[in-house]
Amino acid sequence: MKARVTVTLRDGILDPQGKAIEGALVALGFGGVGAVRQGKVFDIDLAETDPAKARDALDRMCKALLANLVIEDYAIDMG
Amino acid sequence: MKARVTVTLRDGILDPQGKAIEGALVALGFGGVGAVRQGKVFDIDLAETDPAKARDALDRMCKALLANLVIEDYAIDMG
Repeated sequence: MKARVTVTLRDGILDPQGKAIEGALVALGFGGVGAVRQGKVFDIDLAETDPAKARDALDRMCKALLANLVIEDYAIDMG
Repeated sequence: MKARVTVTLRDGILDPQGKAIEGALVALGFGGVGAVRQGKVFDIDLAETDPAKARDALDRMCKALLANLVIEDYAIDMG
């Protein structure tokens, strides 16, 4: 089964990359652009077919590798 | 209004970062992990309140800055 994991910075954590994109959008003439925050997505193919087991494995993958829980949150979305 | 733009590599475009993550997950003992593809998300606050105008502006932002359409696709999601 296919899953999408989205990793985003926690609220309050400074995001210099997002700030740079925000500045670039404004410089390009896009008005009304407020805060921009950048995150990551991982599209993962899993052999597991049981949704509960797949979610559990993805949860462990996030904790072990995909997200830094000190500064990031993650969301698991299974198609 | 808030919007999320997801930028992913097009099918067939090599993703060495995804491959590295796939290798790391397997090395960490996660069995049954197939292809991993990495992409980016942008969470953008917009002053615009008309959904159609906001989507149009986001479309132009993707084409101008957020996505490289030669190798990437984008999806716009408005909350």
